[in-house]
Amino acid sequence: MRYIYPFDFHHERAPMEMKDLLGGKGANLAEMTSVLKLPVPHGFTISTDACREYLKTGWPVGLDDELEKALSELELKMGRRLGDPNDPLLVSVRSGAKFSMPGMMDTVLNLGLNDESVEGLAEATNDQRFAYDSYRRFIQMYSRIVLGLDPSEMDLLFEETKEKVGAETDADVPVDALKSLIVSFKEIVERETSKEFPSDPTAQLKGAISAVFGSWNGERAKAYRRREGISDDLGTAVNVQAMVFGNRDNNSGTGVGFTRDPATGEKGIYGDFLVNAQGEDVVAGVRNTEHLVALKDRFPEVFDQLVDIFHRLESHYRDMCDTEFTIEQGKLWMLQTRVGKRTGVAALKMAVEMTQDEWIKLNKTEAVLRITGDHLDQVLHPQFADDNYKVLTKGLGASPGAAVGKVCFSSYDAVLRVQHGEKVILVRKETSPDDVQGMLAAQGVLTTRGGLVSHAAVVARGWGKPAVVGAEAIKVAERFFQVGETTVHDGDIISIDGTSGEVVLGAVRLSAAEPTSEFNTILSWADEIRRSKLAVRANADNGEDATVAAFFGAEGIGLCRTEHMFLREDRLPIVRRMILADTEDEEAAALEELRVAQRDDFLEILRAMSGLPVTVRLLDPPLHEFLPDVEHLMVKQAVEGLSEEEERLLGAARSWHEVNPMLGTRGVRLGVIKPGLYAMQVRALVQAAQTLRAEGGDPKVEIMVPLVVGSEELKLARSWAQDVIDELGAKDLDITIGTMIETPRAAIRAQEIATFAEFFSFGTNDLTQMTFGFSRDDVEGRLMSSYLEKGLLHNNPFKVVDPDGVGELVRMGIERGRSAKSDLKVGVCGEHGGDPASIETFYEAGVSYVSCSPYRVPIARLSAAHAVLRSKR
Amino acid sequence: MRYIYPFDFHHERAPMEMKDLLGGKGANLAEMTSVLKLPVPHGFTISTDACREYLKTGWPVGLDDELEKALSELELKMGRRLGDPNDPLLVSVRSGAKFSMPGMMDTVLNLGLNDESVEGLAEATNDQRFAYDSYRRFIQMYSRIVLGLDPSEMDLLFEETKEKVGAETDADVPVDALKSLIVSFKEIVERETSKEFPSDPTAQLKGAISAVFGSWNGERAKAYRRREGISDDLGTAVNVQAMVFGNRDNNSGTGVGFTRDPATGEKGIYGDFLVNAQGEDVVAGVRNTEHLVALKDRFPEVFDQLVDIFHRLESHYRDMCDTEFTIEQGKLWMLQTRVGKRTGVAALKMAVEMTQDEWIKLNKTEAVLRITGDHLDQVLHPQFADDNYKVLTKGLGASPGAAVGKVCFSSYDAVLRVQHGEKVILVRKETSPDDVQGMLAAQGVLTTRGGLVSHAAVVARGWGKPAVVGAEAIKVAERFFQVGETTVHDGDIISIDGTSGEVVLGAVRLSAAEPTSEFNTILSWADEIRRSKLAVRANADNGEDATVAAFFGAEGIGLCRTEHMFLREDRLPIVRRMILADTEDEEAAALEELRVAQRDDFLEILRAMSGLPVTVRLLDPPLHEFLPDVEHLMVKQAVEGLSEEEERLLGAARSWHEVNPMLGTRGVRLGVIKPGLYAMQVRALVQAAQTLRAEGGDPKVEIMVPLVVGSEELKLARSWAQDVIDELGAKDLDITIGTMIETPRAAIRAQEIATFAEFFSFGTNDLTQMTFGFSRDDVEGRLMSSYLEKGLLHNNPFKVVDPDGVGELVRMGIERGRSAKSDLKVGVCGEHGGDPASIETFYEAGVSYVSCSPYRVPIARLSAAHAVLRSKR
Repeated sequence: MRYIYPFDFHHERAPMEMKDLLGGKGANLAEMTSVLKLPVPHGFTISTDACREYLKTGWPVGLDDELEKALSELELKMGRRLGDPNDPLLVSVRSGAKFSMPGMMDTVLNLGLNDESVEGLAEATNDQRFAYDSYRRFIQMYSRIVLGLDPSEMDLLFEETKEKVGAETDADVPVDALKSLIVSFKEIVERETSKEFPSDPTAQLKGAISAVFGSWNGERAKAYRRREGISDDLGTAVNVQAMVFGNRDNNSGTGVGFTRDPATGEKGIYGDFLVNAQGEDVVAGVRNTEHLVALKDRFPEVFDQLVDIFHRLESHYRDMCDTEFTIEQGKLWMLQTRVGKRTGVAALKMAVEMTQDEWIKLNKTEAVLRITGDHLDQVLHPQFADDNYKVLTKGLGASPGAAVGKVCFSSYDAVLRVQHGEKVILVRKETSPDDVQGMLAAQGVLTTRGGLVSHAAVVARGWGKPAVVGAEAIKVAERFFQVGETTVHDGDIISIDGTSGEVVLGAVRLSAAEPTSEFNTILSWADEIRRSKLAVRANADNGEDATVAAFFGAEGIGLCRTEHMFLREDRLPIVRRMILADTEDEEAAALEELRVAQRDDFLEILRAMSGLPVTVRLLDPPLHEFLPDVEHLMVKQAVEGLSEEEERLLGAARSWHEVNPMLGTRGVRLGVIKPGLYAMQVRALVQAAQTLRAEGGDPKVEIMVPLVVGSEELKLARSWAQDVIDELGAKDLDITIGTMIETPRAAIRAQEIATFAEFFSFGTNDLTQMTFGFSRDDVEGRLMSSYLEKGLLHNNPFKVVDPDGVGELVRMGIERGRSAKSDLKVGVCGEHGGDPASIETFYEAGVSYVSCSPYRVPIARLSAAHAVLRSKR
Repeated sequence: MRYIYPFDFHHERAPMEMKDLLGGKGANLAEMTSVLKLPVPHGFTISTDACREYLKTGWPVGLDDELEKALSELELKMGRRLGDPNDPLLVSVRSGAKFSMPGMMDTVLNLGLNDESVEGLAEATNDQRFAYDSYRRFIQMYSRIVLGLDPSEMDLLFEETKEKVGAETDADVPVDALKSLIVSFKEIVERETSKEFPSDPTAQLKGAISAVFGSWNGERAKAYRRREGISDDLGTAVNVQAMVFGNRDNNSGTGVGFTRDPATGEKGIYGDFLVNAQGEDVVAGVRNTEHLVALKDRFPEVFDQLVDIFHRLESHYRDMCDTEFTIEQGKLWMLQTRVGKRTGVAALKMAVEMTQDEWIKLNKTEAVLRITGDHLDQVLHPQFADDNYKVLTKGLGASPGAAVGKVCFSSYDAVLRVQHGEKVILVRKETSPDDVQGMLAAQGVLTTRGGLVSHAAVVARGWGKPAVVGAEAIKVAERFFQVGETTVHDGDIISIDGTSGEVVLGAVRLSAAEPTSEFNTILSWADEIRRSKLAVRANADNGEDATVAAFFGAEGIGLCRTEHMFLREDRLPIVRRMILADTEDEEAAALEELRVAQRDDFLEILRAMSGLPVTVRLLDPPLHEFLPDVEHLMVKQAVEGLSEEEERLLGAARSWHEVNPMLGTRGVRLGVIKPGLYAMQVRALVQAAQTLRAEGGDPKVEIMVPLVVGSEELKLARSWAQDVIDELGAKDLDITIGTMIETPRAAIRAQEIATFAEFFSFGTNDLTQMTFGFSRDDVEGRLMSSYLEKGLLHNNPFKVVDPDGVGELVRMGIERGRSAKSDLKVGVCGEHGGDPASIETFYEAGVSYVSCSPYRVPIARLSAAHAVLRSKR
């Protein structure tokens, strides 16, 4: 098996189709070198095969020989040798997995330097300061990444030195100071590792390659893969590339460039640039950068060349590209490229505009497939809802959307506090891959340094998480930060706006964003693709939500939960009267009051959805949810005694208390025990429909019976409903009766159940709970993270429907149901109804519609189109 | 459709095979009349078709015509006419369903009497007293059964009359008193029903027929059918038969006879007899009866005739028969016969002996099929365990087994108190069908009147429920009873022995019965049938239970629950130390203590089962089960404060508290969170096996991982176990590793799971909970009874495994598991493993063994044989 491929290797297929083998970065380097013939420093890619082998059995047999050969070839091409005391070759070592994982995998630059070769570099470049600065950087980076040392001691030493010598920038530190730093750094390494810093360049290289391979299984890489659904089996490639030096002199520099603005999608080059610096300086946000257009003045020829390359890249990749480049003494080198990540707004704008750009010419289907649910999510992210706030300070709006939370200064704290139900904003000077978990947990991220391509910005954008970066006015201390005279403590609430960059002390009211016109264009294209195949409805429990749902394009209500109406403050006392009723008359009186209230609720919803189907689920939750907490009352009873009313409530709460309420007296079981309840609800609903009809509206009512385990319950509940419909003379109304399929048994017995149902709606939340035996309330924290971490589950089954277990029951339920009634309408109303991967599973199973929260409707419409396009049906 | 068949109708098939149509009683009457040619009063059967039609649409069209015709024929055969003012024909009207339902359906005697025909009867028989006594009985019975009046007012009037005229027996009441009673009874009817008592005999007959049909859907009939698993759709037939009069004079009488003793199984005729009485008097136990052998002196010819008939019946039915007969003025009439109910001891004795009886010649298979699980259950019923008690009084031992409980005087109370967790003995003067629910709820039944064929005795025997009847020394008042000087109050504890008839004040220690030799014979025959096809194991958690299990013939342990060892008083503090451990060292130390304790537990069990497989389930329940009650601690905290230890326990209890513990952190999930726990248990188990091996024993260990949802968990848990086995050098031991299948997902994913399992064991309790979404703790009371009552479920799925839902998952799990591993061993270890109907479902699904509680093992062995014999496999 061949492990190593030079960038100019003649592959049988286009390198960009070989990301499995070469990784994304390696494939793109080969594409740029061998296909596009761009100025790329020579190098080679060690394949993912090597990584997989390494992770299985250690350093692969035969890799040494190949490495020696590849290195010789590289040395030949460059006319320099690694470790040469005269004019040595230096290389960078970078990871490159199939899928871009920003900041997750590690990079080592300037590899090949030691006490001898540094002198050769100095001589060859006639620049001592440059050579020793490169050496200093190399030791720092290698110590951190390959040797795993805590970087803070070296960082501190360097900062102290800068202060001592009065250096404003890194470039101002004189040679002697650098030399003495190098000595100190090496002492630190020897003290911490009990070994000398490696001086043999081949040993350095093998160490760096091993470190890249090993970092594939680092906790933060695994966490990222889990979130992104990337398989653990892929492994990463390693790219070894001859160094060019952006930190050579002031005629050098390094930058990150996008062919369009990744934040807004506007056409025109975009990016950051630093004179006399290496790439890491830009990405890490250590120094504040200049905008790419500044190149035009400083390096006009390079600028023109870059603009031309950007155009060629877009034409070639048919998409916006993200590049890294370096200028070494006036010459441009392309270090890498990839199809760039973008915000939701940008993705939408680009996808629509690229259908018109002559050099790209997307078709509508391609455009729809370019947009992900996360993109839409970002567009739909909350924004500040009013202007009535005072801006504390402003940074760069790095990832759109606004967020409110308690200030939290460490990633670890953030994770803990979120587990305890708090919402936090993670505040850091700058973020590193160590902060990934905390960023994931936080509502939003605020950093005081770095630019729009800093780690914090890139990661947050990828997740659609609001972020403000480079808010330089903020001085962070350990448990507080200061902005001028204002001190903000750990735990204080702040608000951030990731679009404007505003930071506000206190909570600002949030509202959903206004979607852009491209948002509507893409969704209309998506609708063309999916409308006749998979409908999208919303879950809404009141007129207001139903109106929002209609606004977002819902084609009906898939789930109206009537219990939310019961929990309203003015209804709860009536519900309790019903539960506490001693006589049938008392119960009937309470039910009558509820009927009047529910009729009005239903009318509002039916009005908002006139002409569209509205599925109303009859009361589902256990009755004790409407009663006060037993523990609380017992303590009060013991300490101060209870009122007569409280005593009755305690009695009722005790009598309705259940050991496992999830599996207790709820759903249709309530109906069986209190038959008047369901009849009342149906009466309220039918009367609301009659009122709407009288108003000239067009009510389409679907009455849904929850939690059946077989056909008998549905038959009984159906008879109650039918009696009311007959009694109210409502036969002419469009009313159908169906059931939720949410117990495994209901899926198994779907054939009989279907004979009493006009429709099924899969309640995949409960179905997941019962199929796995996972109580969502209990397993989602500690247990679920253990399961995901240990690979016992590939996804949280409450987020992405389990295709193998729950999915099989859905398939079985549909098949058996339709075998009895071929025109059975089948929907999904669990939260999975808004999840893209789940929508694919449901569509493949034969579902007719999905239903989700109103704000997820656009994502569901898009995902439905994706499901249709990708379907094997 | 023909609705009515005379007893002598020439059917195409043997009438006894037509019980579907004729009901049991009608089929047997036809068999006796037309096949055996026994002296049976003429009559006809109205078929179950008529009943079903009646229940659906009311009185069937065409039935009137058929009835008129059948009646004319009967009148012709008997030479008398119904309602004839001279020598009238009287008839009895009896229900007769396919399956005998003692006391559940109602009977009307002497039908056809009115103010005119009673005079004709008096004239024809020349016996005024007899005629008016019959009339009095008829009005009483008709009022109660057909008109639905409360009988107590008429009963009281009759008792008062008897007292007033100084009558010792019913036969002593003079004609005038009877006439005046009749007038009073009719007044009561008119007052209560606002209608005159019906005098037209045809109206009387149609009323009685309707009442019988209607009683099919009476609450008590439905309750009985639910318990016995009889379909509600069968309906009952009605038998109309010419009356003969056991109450004609002292040369008349009536009796109930068995061809062998139904209590012991001893050969020889057995039964009760009353001179000058009608059948109801015997069954209701209103008067104390004479033993059947007393006939020999009083009616020697009838006695010989009866002995001859009994022998013919046994030869014909090839089983013990239960008969009712009447002697009218010295002539014997057979009123009905059926294969008789019997106690467990009797059933065993008869089945074995009938293989040797020349006139019967059962084969072994037939003998095994004659025995039911209930029969064995009775034999295995608890008995008084020591002699150290004082007998309060003695009645008739009517249904074997001993019971202890609180005295309870009403059926209603009994049901309520049992629902609240109490154990009660129902104490009644005599029982009636109204007491069925209370008898079912009670531990045992004690009556002060009635004989061995009284309602109480028959019903209790059928259910294997201990009963003492006819304890005449007991005087029952409303809330207490007296025996001589002793007063026993409602709620006091008594003990009864249904074999000896002893009644004891206070609780006597109970032990299981010694099985008879026939018990062992039948089981050995059962074993021959099933042994190679379906093994039977026991669930046992300690050496003692394992020893009992071995005694009852268990072929291994199918489920050893290790948590029971953890709950022992001396272990609980160690378990809590493990849970509370702040450091890994503390946790490890606690685990080490537990290991030592568990090793000893395991050794005991393995020793008791040396040479047989022992399946040990690793820890399953949620950890908070080992912690104190949160509510209790919170109240204590509020009122008096907690110790430091208690505060820690409260903290732990809160942190491990779960909303739905059934679906929470338990089973293998505990192992994932605390991996040391399972490793410790496996270590203890393997060391115990090594010790036993060193002692010369033969341990066969099966390590069982609970609650998996997929193959990944099992793979992980398997690796922990395998590591310990390797480390302890135990590869030469017979140790296999398998898993429970108790989540629906595990059944669905059985194919992958099987690749990591040597065996599956279906945990059908949990599988039922999750498949239905039924928390056993929450739904088994109120909800389950509603569901059974309303026909939403046909059985409690925790008693009889649901063949359609859970059964389908079992079948799916086995099929998929074996598709990956054809020699996969598959067992069942839920409580269903001891239920006969469930065992059939499991055997059909392909299960290799069932496991149940030690005392159920004999029943499981028998049921396994039945399953094999009835199987379509």
